[in-house]
Amino acid sequence: MHRDVSTANFFQRADLRVVLVAPRNPLNIGAAARAMANFGCTRLRVVNPYEVAFREARSAVGAAPLLASAEEFTTLAAAVADCALVVGTTSLGHREPQHPLRRLESGARLMRQAAGPIALLFGSEKFGLSNEDMSHCHWLMRIPTVDLNRSMNLGQAVAVCLYELARNSRAAAARPEKPVKAARAADTEQITVMLLEALERSGYIKPLTAASAKTKVRRLVRRLNLSAHDAPVVLGMLRQILWKLGA
Amino acid sequence: MHRDVSTANFFQRADLRVVLVAPRNPLNIGAAARAMANFGCTRLRVVNPYEVAFREARSAVGAAPLLASAEEFTTLAAAVADCALVVGTTSLGHREPQHPLRRLESGARLMRQAAGPIALLFGSEKFGLSNEDMSHCHWLMRIPTVDLNRSMNLGQAVAVCLYELARNSRAAAARPEKPVKAARAADTEQITVMLLEALERSGYIKPLTAASAKTKVRRLVRRLNLSAHDAPVVLGMLRQILWKLGA
Repeated sequence: MHRDVSTANFFQRADLRVVLVAPRNPLNIGAAARAMANFGCTRLRVVNPYEVAFREARSAVGAAPLLASAEEFTTLAAAVADCALVVGTTSLGHREPQHPLRRLESGARLMRQAAGPIALLFGSEKFGLSNEDMSHCHWLMRIPTVDLNRSMNLGQAVAVCLYELARNSRAAAARPEKPVKAARAADTEQITVMLLEALERSGYIKPLTAASAKTKVRRLVRRLNLSAHDAPVVLGMLRQILWKLGA
Repeated sequence: MHRDVSTANFFQRADLRVVLVAPRNPLNIGAAARAMANFGCTRLRVVNPYEVAFREARSAVGAAPLLASAEEFTTLAAAVADCALVVGTTSLGHREPQHPLRRLESGARLMRQAAGPIALLFGSEKFGLSNEDMSHCHWLMRIPTVDLNRSMNLGQAVAVCLYELARNSRAAAARPEKPVKAARAADTEQITVMLLEALERSGYIKPLTAASAKTKVRRLVRRLNLSAHDAPVVLGMLRQILWKLGA
C-alpha cells in the first residue's frame, strides 16, 4: 500500500500546535480534532473554551485520544508561550494594514520553512479572533474564499489549513495531458449498456456473474477515455452489432 | 479590498457539480453546501439522500440558496449524465488496481485542465462510494490523509477538495525567506510587557488609551520578527531601562 510518508513527516517535523480560541460548539471542537487526526497533527490546545462544549467534545467518539490529551489554557499568551511562530487565521480582509495578511498558499509555505514550534490559531465560531488575539500573532492568514461567503465553518477551516500544510507540491506536478474533449457520461453509459447487452446476448456474460460483470465492463469503458468525437462512432458500431445479435 | 478573482473564475469556468451519493446526516449536507458557497461553487446534486436529512438540511440556515437549488436524482447515472469527466473520492487505497487512483494534488490538476462539465462524487458518511458507484467514475481521487486515520468527515472532505481546486499555485510561490531561528513567543511577550511598562512609566502611554496602546505595541513587537539570538539582548536593554525609570 502506498504510504504518505511526506504527510506524516511534515507534522512531526514542524511541531505544530492547533490552538482553538474560545470555541463554543462541541461538534466543531470534535471536527477540528478529527481533521488533525486525518493529517497526523497531534497537539491540540484550547483557550477558554465554553466549558460544556469542551466536556461534550471530549466524550464524543472519534479523535478521542487527541481530545483527551488536549491542553487547556486561560490565556492565549500562555497557550502560545513555547512557540516561535504564531499565525492567526481570519476570514476578513485587512483590518489593520500593518498586520501582514497572507493567503493560505503562501502562508503555509512560510510555515513549512519556519524553524521551531508553530501555533496556528482559530477564533471562535461567531467572532473569529479578536484584535487582542491577533496582536499575539506574527502574521495572519486567510483561506482564499470568495468575497460573498468568506467565513468558513471552524472544523472545515482547520481541515483546509492542515491539508495545505500537508499537501505535496511535487505530487501536483503530474505530467500534463493533452486536452481532448471527453465524451459525456450519458454517452459513455449508453455505450456501457449496449456493450453489456451485446455481451449478454452473445453468451459472454453468464446470468450468475452478471452483476460483477456489469461493474467490470462499466470501468473498462471509462478507462477507454472516449472522446466526444469517438463516442457516437462506437455507439453506431454497437447498435449495429446488437441488431445483428437479435433479441 | 483584495478580490480573489482567480478563485471565482475556476468554478465559473470548470462548471463543477458536487454530487453527494446517499448522504445521511443533515449537518453534513449543510456543511458541504457551506463549503461550496465559500469557494464559489454553486451546483449541488444529491443522489438518493436520506429524505429526512435532506429536508432538514434544506431548512437549515446558511448556504440556503444553494440547497434550495440542489438537484435530486434517484440514480447516479442520471446525476452525472451531462458530465464529461466523473471523479470519485475515496479514503481507501486501491480496491481495484485497474481503476486509477490519484492524490488530490494531481487529480485537481487534471480537473483544472479538463474541458466540459465535471462531476465530483462523495459517498455516504458510513460506507463511502460503492463499487457500483465507482464504476461510473473515470478515475478516483483521495485526500492525502495519514494511514491510521484515512476517513474524513464528509463536510471537511468537500471543503478540502474544493480548496485544492480553487487554490492558486502562483500564490504559493512567494519569495523564499532566509530561515532565521525566531524568538519564542514567551520572550516576545516578555519584551512587550516590559516595553509597555517602560512606556507607561515614561508617560508615553496615557491611562485613557492604555488598552489600545497595548494591542498596538504587541503588534509592533511581533513585526520586529526578533530572532532567538536578539530577544535576550532586547530583554536586557529593557530591563535596564525599566530599572532606570523606577517604579
